[in-house]
Amino acid sequence: MTFDYPARRTRLAELLPAREVHALLVTSPVNVHYLTGLVSSNAAVLVRADGTALLATDNRYIEVARTLDVPSVEASDVAGTLAAPGAGIEAASMSVAAYHRLGEGLVPLGPVVELLRAVKDEAELERLRTACAITDRAFADVSARIAPGITERGLARLLDHRMTELGADKPAFDTIVAAGEHGAIPHHAPTDRELRAGDLVTMDFGARYQGYHADMTRTVSLGEPVAWQREIYDLVAAAQRAGRHAVTPGAESGNVDAAARSVIEEAGHGGHFRHGLGHGVGLEIHEEPFLGPSRTGRLEDRVPITVEPGIYLPGRGGVRIEDTLVTREGGPELLTKTTKELLVL
Amino acid sequence: MTFDYPARRTRLAELLPAREVHALLVTSPVNVHYLTGLVSSNAAVLVRADGTALLATDNRYIEVARTLDVPSVEASDVAGTLAAPGAGIEAASMSVAAYHRLGEGLVPLGPVVELLRAVKDEAELERLRTACAITDRAFADVSARIAPGITERGLARLLDHRMTELGADKPAFDTIVAAGEHGAIPHHAPTDRELRAGDLVTMDFGARYQGYHADMTRTVSLGEPVAWQREIYDLVAAAQRAGRHAVTPGAESGNVDAAARSVIEEAGHGGHFRHGLGHGVGLEIHEEPFLGPSRTGRLEDRVPITVEPGIYLPGRGGVRIEDTLVTREGGPELLTKTTKELLVL
Repeated sequence: MTFDYPARRTRLAELLPAREVHALLVTSPVNVHYLTGLVSSNAAVLVRADGTALLATDNRYIEVARTLDVPSVEASDVAGTLAAPGAGIEAASMSVAAYHRLGEGLVPLGPVVELLRAVKDEAELERLRTACAITDRAFADVSARIAPGITERGLARLLDHRMTELGADKPAFDTIVAAGEHGAIPHHAPTDRELRAGDLVTMDFGARYQGYHADMTRTVSLGEPVAWQREIYDLVAAAQRAGRHAVTPGAESGNVDAAARSVIEEAGHGGHFRHGLGHGVGLEIHEEPFLGPSRTGRLEDRVPITVEPGIYLPGRGGVRIEDTLVTREGGPELLTKTTKELLVL
Repeated sequence: MTFDYPARRTRLAELLPAREVHALLVTSPVNVHYLTGLVSSNAAVLVRADGTALLATDNRYIEVARTLDVPSVEASDVAGTLAAPGAGIEAASMSVAAYHRLGEGLVPLGPVVELLRAVKDEAELERLRTACAITDRAFADVSARIAPGITERGLARLLDHRMTELGADKPAFDTIVAAGEHGAIPHHAPTDRELRAGDLVTMDFGARYQGYHADMTRTVSLGEPVAWQREIYDLVAAAQRAGRHAVTPGAESGNVDAAARSVIEEAGHGGHFRHGLGHGVGLEIHEEPFLGPSRTGRLEDRVPITVEPGIYLPGRGGVRIEDTLVTREGGPELLTKTTKELLVL
C-alpha cells in the first residue's frame, strides 16, 4: 500500500482557518516527509488553506523532489524562499535563529501536523505491524543467547543485527540492555558488564521498517527470581495490563496513565515509577500523543501507542514491560506479541 | 584517556565576556554532553563567566548526573529552571516555542560551544582514529562481497554489521550504497537494486566509536571502467588530492573548497559538483567547520574534517571520494587510510 500525500495536505489545509493563518510553513523534516514523501535534511513545504502546496529543497534532493506529486523549487534557504507574511510556522521545531532570519509577520503555532500524524492510515499500520513482527521475531531468535557471560553490549548487537537481517531499515533507537543493578536506570546505555546468574535483564528495543518505529521492552530473569524480583515483576505486569485495558478511543491520556500508575502506587512503589506511561510511535519513535500524569487530550481511533510502566530500585535493579498497540473500537490491537510471562533463562 | 570537562567549561567561560553575557544557557544535547559528559535528551547546563556551572536534568538521568564533576539539580523544565536574565541562549538549536516560554531578557547567540568543539584534544583524536580504523577495516573485510548480484541494501548491511562487530557503537550515519545511475544522487538511500557488471558503486559510511564519528566514501568499478567512468574518477581523485593538500592550519575555508573545486571546474564539470567540499566531524557527523564556496573563517590546528568532492551525472552515475583527516602543522594527518586507487572488482 502506498501513501496518499495529497490527502494528507488536504487534511492539514482544513485545520488552518481555525488557527487564523492562510498557510503553514512546514520545516520539521519528519513533517515534510509525511506531507510530501521527501526525506531530506534541508527541505520545507508551504501548505496553503486552499490545499495547494509548494516544496523547496536544495540541489542534493531536488532530483528526487521533482518525481513527487507536489510542485517544487530548488533553493538553499528553503524556509526563506517559502516564507510569506501571515503564514504559520512550527514553533516547536523551528530554531530561534531561523525565526529571526525569516523576519516579521510569521505566526508561531503549536503542534498541527503532529496531531494529524497521530492517527494512522492503513498503509502506516501495515508497516508498523511488520516493524513489530520483526521485533518479536528478533527477540525469539536471540533469546537462547541471553545467558551468563554475554555482555550488555554484545546482546544489544545480536538484537540489532537480527532485526536488520529480518528486513528492518535499522534499529528504531539505541537498543537498551540493562543487567542487574543497571536495570534501575530507565535509559541505560549498554556496557561491557557481563550478564550474571541472578540478574534481571531489561531489553528495550525495536525495528524501524520503511520508516516506521516499533518499541518493545521485556525483562527476563537469569535463574529463578528471588522474592523482590518476582514481586516487582508481577506488579509491573499487572500495571501494564491495566494500562493496556484503558487504551481505547475517547480515553483521556491522563486517565490511561493513572490506570497503570495506581496499581504501582497502591503497592507503595509510586516513587519508583517516575516517567510517563507511554507515547505514540510512527515516523518518529516518540511522537504525539503522550501518556503521563499531567497529559491532557483524548485518544482517537487508530493511534499506535506504547504502554510501558516500570519499577526501578536504585542500586538493585528494575523491571519494565512495554508493548506497542493501536487504539481500536472494541479493544486495542496488540502489535508486539512476545509473551509477558516472566521468562526464566 | 578521559575527557577534561571542567577545562572545557573554563574555555567556554572565557568566551562569554566578548559576547556580553554573564552566562550561557546550553540546551543543545550534544553541547551538554561535551561540557559535562551527560548524554540525555532532556538536560541543560548554565555555564557562568566565572567558570562555575549548574546542570539540570530530569528524573530519568539525575542519578547519572550526580556522578559527574558538576553540580546538578533535578527538574522537568530544565531550561526554565536555569534561565536567568542576561544569559545567552543557543539560537541555532533552541526552538521558538522554548524561547517564548522562557520569557524576556535572554540573549540569542550564534555558535559558541560549536567553535570550541571544532578543535579536538588528544582524547578525542584517539577515538576518531579508532573510528576511522574500524571503517577502513570494515571496508577491507567486506570488499570481497562487492560483486554483481548483491543489493545496495545488502551491501550496506554488511558494512554496518562488520563495523559493529569490530567495536563501533553503531554506524555514524545511514550508510549510502549507490550503484550505477543511483550514483548521481549524492544522498541516495540504499534500495533492493542489485549491483551489476559495468556499475560504478559509491559507498559512503563510517563507524561511530565512543561517540565519535568517522566518515569515508569510496567508489569502485564492477569490471573495467569505460572511458567516461575512468575520466570522472581520475578527476575526482585529483580534486580530492588538491583539497587534502590545502587543509592546513590557517587556511581559509573557502580557499580549501576552491582548491578542489577548481580542478573539477577547469575540466568543465563544475555544474556536476553541487555540494560543499567537507565538514568537521566529532560528536556529530556534521559539525563546525564547514568547507564550501561561501564559507568563511580559518582552519585551526587539530581540526578533524572531511574532504569529499564528487561528480554526479544525472541518469548515468557518479563518483565521490572522501577522507577524514586532521589539520596539523606540517601537513594533515590522514585518518581514513583505504586506498584511493580505483578498485576494479
